[in-house]
Amino acid sequence: MSRDEVLQQIRRGTEEILLESDLEDRLKEGRPLRVKAGFDPTAPDLHLGHTVLLNKLRQFQELGHEAIFLIGDFTGMIGDPTGKNVTRKPLTRDDVIENAKTYEAQIFKILDPEKTLVMFNSSWMNAMDAAGLIQLAAKHTVARMLERDDFSKRYGSGQSIAIHEFLYPLVQGYDSVALKADVELGGTDQKFNLLVGRQLQEAYGQKPQVVLTMPILEGLDGVQKMSKSLGNYIGIAESPDDMFGKLMSISDELMWRYFELLSFRPMSEIEHLKREMQQGRNPRDIKFELGIEIVARFHSEHDAEKAQENFIARFQKGAMPEDIRVVHLQAGADGLPVANVLKDAGLTSSTSEALRMIRQGAARIDGERIEDTLLRLRAGTSCVFQIGKRRFARVIFDS
Amino acid sequence: MSRDEVLQQIRRGTEEILLESDLEDRLKEGRPLRVKAGFDPTAPDLHLGHTVLLNKLRQFQELGHEAIFLIGDFTGMIGDPTGKNVTRKPLTRDDVIENAKTYEAQIFKILDPEKTLVMFNSSWMNAMDAAGLIQLAAKHTVARMLERDDFSKRYGSGQSIAIHEFLYPLVQGYDSVALKADVELGGTDQKFNLLVGRQLQEAYGQKPQVVLTMPILEGLDGVQKMSKSLGNYIGIAESPDDMFGKLMSISDELMWRYFELLSFRPMSEIEHLKREMQQGRNPRDIKFELGIEIVARFHSEHDAEKAQENFIARFQKGAMPEDIRVVHLQAGADGLPVANVLKDAGLTSSTSEALRMIRQGAARIDGERIEDTLLRLRAGTSCVFQIGKRRFARVIFDS
Repeated sequence: MSRDEVLQQIRRGTEEILLESDLEDRLKEGRPLRVKAGFDPTAPDLHLGHTVLLNKLRQFQELGHEAIFLIGDFTGMIGDPTGKNVTRKPLTRDDVIENAKTYEAQIFKILDPEKTLVMFNSSWMNAMDAAGLIQLAAKHTVARMLERDDFSKRYGSGQSIAIHEFLYPLVQGYDSVALKADVELGGTDQKFNLLVGRQLQEAYGQKPQVVLTMPILEGLDGVQKMSKSLGNYIGIAESPDDMFGKLMSISDELMWRYFELLSFRPMSEIEHLKREMQQGRNPRDIKFELGIEIVARFHSEHDAEKAQENFIARFQKGAMPEDIRVVHLQAGADGLPVANVLKDAGLTSSTSEALRMIRQGAARIDGERIEDTLLRLRAGTSCVFQIGKRRFARVIFDS
Repeated sequence: MSRDEVLQQIRRGTEEILLESDLEDRLKEGRPLRVKAGFDPTAPDLHLGHTVLLNKLRQFQELGHEAIFLIGDFTGMIGDPTGKNVTRKPLTRDDVIENAKTYEAQIFKILDPEKTLVMFNSSWMNAMDAAGLIQLAAKHTVARMLERDDFSKRYGSGQSIAIHEFLYPLVQGYDSVALKADVELGGTDQKFNLLVGRQLQEAYGQKPQVVLTMPILEGLDGVQKMSKSLGNYIGIAESPDDMFGKLMSISDELMWRYFELLSFRPMSEIEHLKREMQQGRNPRDIKFELGIEIVARFHSEHDAEKAQENFIARFQKGAMPEDIRVVHLQAGADGLPVANVLKDAGLTSSTSEALRMIRQGAARIDGERIEDTLLRLRAGTSCVFQIGKRRFARVIFDS
């Protein structure tokens, strides 16, 4: 592969590379680069949004570099020192080990375990004393920290910022020093912290890392970021049928976005698929290819093919529209009765019509006939509802 | 002593007591209170300005309380982590022990060694790890820290504040937690930090300490604060003659200030002296009493009497004016030639007149005839110059 091709591959899907000239210089050195990505130490339950970073890490692995999957357990074990957030209890050493195992079970569906270093920042941070942290804090200024978007907003609007919040970006930045990272990957929302890493490495006499930011993946609605609390996610532990069904419900536009950020197929192949669609190929068939690839990654080829068959059988080939409308509904604390769901999603004109449809066997949820008129739908889920053969809607239940 | 008398004694000379009602409550408990005052760990060379706090500590000792002389060596051993201030090298453990010995030699001329606890904040701060410091930092907010006068000025004017500077007041405040201080004394310039101590004690479930601020003592000029770099100081290691001579040169107004803040005599006696002066007693004789007391404290009764005799002999009783004019002169890097001093202090009309006076034996420095026309006076000193019998000026040499 030529240098330009390597760079193009690294550039794929990125939001920003700082500085690209630094990256080129490092690549020229011809040695395996140390590529770091930091992850939350709390119980991991990954969805496709999280895998955008992992996929980029994998790319670096394929190019011969060293992927460092860094678990930020040090601050997790402190918990919320203000005591305001009762749900953010300090993690124990055992929690951290348990969570790391769960992570590994998930991430090695994407990363090559042979080429992945799983590390914990407690290894160096637990050994740091208060004097060391003071010396670290001397390397950054209050004014620069207050430039961070959320800090400047909170300071400006009189919301309090506890002083330790200024220390966390420094700890994260110091991780890059401890790891001698060549490159750090992160979401666009992490850009400030990644730049702190650059600056601290310089202060500690290291060449500052290349910062590579990836966009935040949109959820099934194509608008808001994929998130468990918004219900618009595809969990990587979901069943092949659910995963396949959800992928089939996205818009064509979002499909291309997912191809770029989630597929391992080279961009040249993806461009080819685009041309095929322009020349009249049914976009649903192309979406099938995406669905097959993603389901196979987290389950198996066989599961993926089965999921496609089930999908086709359920929705009677040809009856399912290309783009299913996405509707957000508030599920509330007790869940939303299914008749209200059908009415509020615009599939029936009233709840009594909805109940009649259910009794007639004309209402379906994810392709299955709805039997129970008292069914309630809870927040944090997402299902495709169907009345008759033509009326569809994907409903995302918010809390 | 009645409760009111005790309170009155504690109030003497103070700038502020926060909260006085808390102080009263604690005094009512009838136990010895833990009274903390923090001192710099760098090579101590105390002048009378520093003793204002020590005198207040002594008062508490006399009232039966426990004085804690706290040496803030933890931050001193870190030095200046920004590396900007090359003169602020990190202190070693040996430096700290050496400085503590020098402190003890000086402070036990004021404090009762039996009732004084000399402590080092490194005892608890060296044991604190980075996680502990983060938990400490969670107990204070950025906005409140930026309210501190010097921080708000620097932030407002775009001067940089390194983040560790926000941690130092927290360390100082945590000292009060570690010591379970009942009262903390400090100069008015320390008020913010003392209040952080109150706030942190509360956050750690302790009753917040009483904060007692003392004014910053004016130097010989009666205007600027007593300071070595301003040259307007009386060092407690100075010779009896120098100490006595400098005390004799202060204004009557400053004399009463020094009586209040430096003398151990009860206020009732000082009020009595004031009345005597109003009734015609020569203020110089009252100043003699102050000089005798202070010199005796740092040397001996005998030395004090001898210093007074020497002073009277040197200045030929009655020839020295009550108030000697104080003049500040810039000494520059090479010092100021004595002829320029005499001219610039307004004692002669020209340097040639000054040189003539020196050659005629009519010029004196601290009562001694000036022999050397090439004498240069250096910054950081202060002497009384005299031409003939009536022209006097105390010159303070600034850099």
